[in-house]
Formats: sequence, C-alpha cells, structure tokens
Amino acid sequence: MQVNGEPYRAIWLDHEGAKIHVINQTVLPFRFELQTLDTLSDVTLAIRDMVVRGAPLIGAAAACGLYLAADTNPEDDHLQQARRELLGARPTAVNLRWALDQMLPRLLEVPPPSRAGVARSIAQQICDDDVATNSAIGDHGLVVIAEKARHKNGEPLNILTHCNAGWLATVDWGTALSPIFKAHDAGIAVHVWVDETRPRNQGASLTAWELAAHGIPHTVIADNAGGHLMQHGQVDLCIVGSDRTTRTGDVCNKIGTYLKALAAHDNDVPFYAALPSSTIDWTVHNGVKEIPIEERPAEELTHISGVDTDNRVTRIRLTPEASPAANPAFDVTPRHLVSGIITERGIALASEPALLDLFPEQQAERVLPGSISTP
Amino acid sequence: MQVNGEPYRAIWLDHEGAKIHVINQTVLPFRFELQTLDTLSDVTLAIRDMVVRGAPLIGAAAACGLYLAADTNPEDDHLQQARRELLGARPTAVNLRWALDQMLPRLLEVPPPSRAGVARSIAQQICDDDVATNSAIGDHGLVVIAEKARHKNGEPLNILTHCNAGWLATVDWGTALSPIFKAHDAGIAVHVWVDETRPRNQGASLTAWELAAHGIPHTVIADNAGGHLMQHGQVDLCIVGSDRTTRTGDVCNKIGTYLKALAAHDNDVPFYAALPSSTIDWTVHNGVKEIPIEERPAEELTHISGVDTDNRVTRIRLTPEASPAANPAFDVTPRHLVSGIITERGIALASEPALLDLFPEQQAERVLPGSISTP
Repeated sequence: MQVNGEPYRAIWLDHEGAKIHVINQTVLPFRFELQTLDTLSDVTLAIRDMVVRGAPLIGAAAACGLYLAADTNPEDDHLQQARRELLGARPTAVNLRWALDQMLPRLLEVPPPSRAGVARSIAQQICDDDVATNSAIGDHGLVVIAEKARHKNGEPLNILTHCNAGWLATVDWGTALSPIFKAHDAGIAVHVWVDETRPRNQGASLTAWELAAHGIPHTVIADNAGGHLMQHGQVDLCIVGSDRTTRTGDVCNKIGTYLKALAAHDNDVPFYAALPSSTIDWTVHNGVKEIPIEERPAEELTHISGVDTDNRVTRIRLTPEASPAANPAFDVTPRHLVSGIITERGIALASEPALLDLFPEQQAERVLPGSISTP
Repeated sequence: MQVNGEPYRAIWLDHEGAKIHVINQTVLPFRFELQTLDTLSDVTLAIRDMVVRGAPLIGAAAACGLYLAADTNPEDDHLQQARRELLGARPTAVNLRWALDQMLPRLLEVPPPSRAGVARSIAQQICDDDVATNSAIGDHGLVVIAEKARHKNGEPLNILTHCNAGWLATVDWGTALSPIFKAHDAGIAVHVWVDETRPRNQGASLTAWELAAHGIPHTVIADNAGGHLMQHGQVDLCIVGSDRTTRTGDVCNKIGTYLKALAAHDNDVPFYAALPSSTIDWTVHNGVKEIPIEERPAEELTHISGVDTDNRVTRIRLTPEASPAANPAFDVTPRHLVSGIITERGIALASEPALLDLFPEQQAERVLPGSISTP
C-alpha cells in the first residue's frame, strides 16, 4: 500500500541483485525505515528481532532467506542448514515452516546450479500468492462496505477494527484492512475507529500508521471505547482479522475481539472476520473449548515503549512492582456473534455448512499439512 | 486501609495542630509519600494538581481547606474568598461544591471566634460520614461475596473490577473495593482481576497499588482480557463503582464498564455496581440517552507516564503523530446487564421500583440539591 504517496510492499526482492528489501517494523510508528537484507543471516535476524512480523510476512521472508542461501551456496548441506537456522528464528511461526516446506523439497529436486534461480522464482511466487489472496479478500469485503456505504448518503462509513490485520503483517493489502484500502481507493468515504489493542498496542501503532500513511481517515480509541460508540450509532461495521478460525466459524483473534463482538451484537452492528482460508483449522469444532490460548509475558502489560520528548524510544513500567499481571494473547468469538467470514473465495456465514459450501474440498475432516496448531 | 501493615486514611486532620495530612497520589503507584497541608493554598494546590483525587476525597479535602482558612482568619470576606479559591481548583467537581455548601452557611451563622472550632468539627464529620457510608457499602457487598465464596470450597473467589473505586478515591474503604477489603479482612479467600483501565490506567496503578498495600491477592489484566477469563470460568463475580446511576438503575461508570457487563451477562457472571446513594441521579430515566459523556483530552490516550529503568517518572508518546485519537471517558451499562446495586442502605435490583423501595423518600421526582449533573 502507499506510504506518503509511494506504493510499497512489506517485503520485496531486489529487481537486480540477490538481496531483499523490507520495512523495519521495530521503529514503527515513529520512523519509516527501509532495510536491505543481503544474506541468510540478515533474514534470520530480521525475523528473530521482529523487523518483519505477522504470519504471512514471516513466511514470505523465510522463502526469501532460503533464496539468498541458495544464491550463496546451493549444496544440500547448506540449504538444510539454512532451513534449521530460519526455523530457529521464530520456532512457533507456522507460516515460516510452511514456506520452507513448500520450497526446500523442490530445490533439492533440481541440480545445484539451477537452485538459486528456482528459489528466487518460488520466493517471488509465495510473495505474489499472498498479495493475490489478500487482494481477493479485499474485493469480497469491499462488497459489504459498498453496500453499507450506500445508506450513508455520502457520510463516511464508520468501521471499527481491532489489532493489526493490515498490510504490514502480510506482503501487501492485509486481511481485515484489505477491504478498507479497496473501499478508500474506490472513492468510498470511510473512517476507521482503531482499537489501541492492549497490551501490545498493534492498533495504536501499526494500524494507525498504515491508515495515516495511505491517507485514510481514522481515530485511535481505547479498547474500552467501542461499546459506547456502538451504543450511540457511531460504528456502522466491524471488521477484524483472525489467527485461527474453526470449521464451524468460531473466530480466534487478538484478545478483546470477543468483547467487541458482544457489543456489536447488542447494538445490531455487523461483525465480520476477514482471513485467508489457510488459517481455517478444519479439525476444530468448538473454538472456546478446543483452542489453547497462549499466555504471553506479563512484561507486555506491565511495561510499554514509546518515544520521549526527544523522540528517543523509551521503555517504562506502568504498574506497581508488587502486582503480578496476566496476559492471555487471544480470545475466541463464538460463531453466533459473527455476521460473516470474508475469505479469498468469498464470504460465508459463520457456520460449518456455509464454510464447507465455499470450501467443498474440506468436506472430509482431515488435518491439513499446513494447518495452524497454535494461534 | 492498610499500607504495609499500617492503617491509613486518604486524608486526615492532624490530632494537634491546624494541619491536614494526605497521601500524595501523583507519585502512586511508584512511591508512597505523605504530604502535610498547612494552609488553604496548600489544599487548593493539592486539589488542583490531583495530589488528592476522587469525588468524595475532593469534597473532604475542600472541607479541610475551609477549616484551615477559618483557622487563619475567620472573617466573612476571607471565608467567601476561600470558597472561591477552592471551587476554582477543580471547577467541575460536584462534591467540592457540595462540601462547601454544607459548611460555609453554618460557619457564617456563628460568631467569628467560634468558626475555626466549628469548621474543624464539620470537616471531621464530613470525613467520618464518608467512611461510614463506604463501610456500610462494604458490609452489604460482603454478603454477596460471602454467599458466592461458600460455593468455592476454600478456593479463592475471583472478582473482576474496572477502574479505581477504592479507598484512595474516598476517605477510606472505597466503594467497589470496600466489600473486597471487608471480605479479605473477614478471612474469605479472594483474588481480584484488576482491569488496567485505559486510558488513565487507574486500575493498573491505583487499584493494584491499594490491593498490594493491603495484602490482597490480585492480578492486573488488559481491559481486553476479561471476556476471555469469563468464558473460561475464571471470574466468579464483577464489582464496579459508578459515577452516576439513574433512577432506573442504568450505571454510568468509567469507559469499558459496559463491555465487561456484556461479557458477564453472556457468561452468567453476576455483575454488581457499588455506590453511595449520593451518586444516584433521581432525575434521569434512560442513562444511554440522557447522560452526556465527557470527551477528555486525546493526550490521555496518545501519551502515557511510567517509570524508566532509573525509577524516574517519564512520559512517552504511543501513537503516530499523524493519527488523531478520541477519548470518551464514561459509558452507560443498561440496567438489564446489572445484577444489583450495592448502596449504603442495602442492595437493590437495578430497577426503579427496587431503588425506590430502598430510598422511598425519592418517590416524588425532584432535583436534589446535591445531585450530580455530569459524571
């Protein structure tokens, strides 16, 4: 998407040389900084230090890392070692493993001298496929936005989102934000309520930054504020992302999503989740009961980073030292609170029959090789 | 309540001289610091700079300030001037005006030489009355806690609270926390989930500090987490305070309260509001429609204070400079989501007939002199 009028992806292969360009996400939203990754080690560090983050983007970055490894030394041993190194950078990242599993067997099938070229084209394909998937999500979601906007008589449509399901977590477009970018680009007046999204503040930092950079009107709010805004007719539509959605339409997403879905339901505000079908876990029926929720470090809640008056990034403690904190990272929104699930194939009601209608190949219940095991 | 084993009030008259002692709330939760107020100006500054905050405590402080003024110079002009000075410290604080209106006419009725003595005794009475009211709220709320705790077989009862309705906002005991202090002191095992309460973080700072100081087990959580905890049976009871409650039982309280009430309702968790009857506005029937909600400065959301690694209080910016923020300070929880309203006279269902049963003198609808006009 755009940054100050210039189009960017979150990652791209250099047009000429064997190098990769990324946006350094560790300094956002305070600075916009590009970073060039020249070697496998550069990519590994970028993944480990969260210069790149977000499941789809990590997968794309890993593919690019394996390409750089093959360009340096295409021998079997070196590629196997590169795979181990990349996997170690974020051991729980499912898309990272998925991208490497897509790529490495195909490289090993061809003679070493051809591997760098094949790796480059597979890496490029993984990036382009992600963009196509997210763009299709945006096209389907755009229909919902356009339909709702028709009733606003030119007034901006107010859309609430939670966390960051934007282009910075993917190669481009994002998931929940993709329909919003499409709507804005199509000339539909939208205004986005951006949930701060404590404790990691991905809304107040990344989502707000993306929208500002692309020129989309938006307002950051405390996570506490959405219910009040809905009570007063100030939210027309909610769109969130999802880390894992069940076969039956329960939506696991960043902690606090469930509270917004309750408020949306209580105030007749449509509530959509936008997600690539790769995040649907066809083995799970009851999200609340079956999906284990990651408990993240208390420090994410007790401490926070921002910039001081000299624009230096500073970390401060917010809570009394004697007070423990708990930090469940996700929650599950039961399907009856979800108006629809926006995928790259279209929009389904949040139910097993509707999802299977869109993905008939999942009729037989089985574990997908690429299915996500922890959100 | 206790701080490291010593009993304290948030404000008290010196036993010997004409001076006032308070806890400096501007440095909590990072330092526990007492401050002595010797003059009217000291009190005015303490109110203005939020060394003391919380509606009941501001009222008590104002009464103490008028006493110090009378002790210095009991003449009419000086007392009238003192009233203006105190009112100017927090112009919208209803309890401040209420305390002065209680006190000044009675002082002007007696000859100047007696005024300091009368002022001291009225100020003391205002403090003691606040303590008695909050203690009674605690006694009634304790019955609910004791009843729920009986089903826990000695396991701690998990109580969720939002914002700070503790003793630091009052002279002692607090409102929502009063039943919790009483339960803990009575030997009932309780554990409190403390909502951080963005954007001003009064939960993560003041409520957590109060509970830690009194030795009550607690855990700070993001405002986003409560719904997930309720879905998984980890919350037995919610108790919140209220800035303004309608004749019909709608509860206006810190922004985000409504979202917790929705989650409590969805998961069959009892949801109580604890409040002194002085905050019931008998003129209002529909809280969502009739109560205007204060929009506070965006800086409360975009910036935050904490301590850096050298324990220096530091303020940082969290959001992109190009992103606006909105900060509605309160929301209204409709009565059907409220299990009961705990007052100093007892517990009422959240309905007009039940509240009037407890406060029959309010049958005739009228504007109370001390009623609150803005939350």
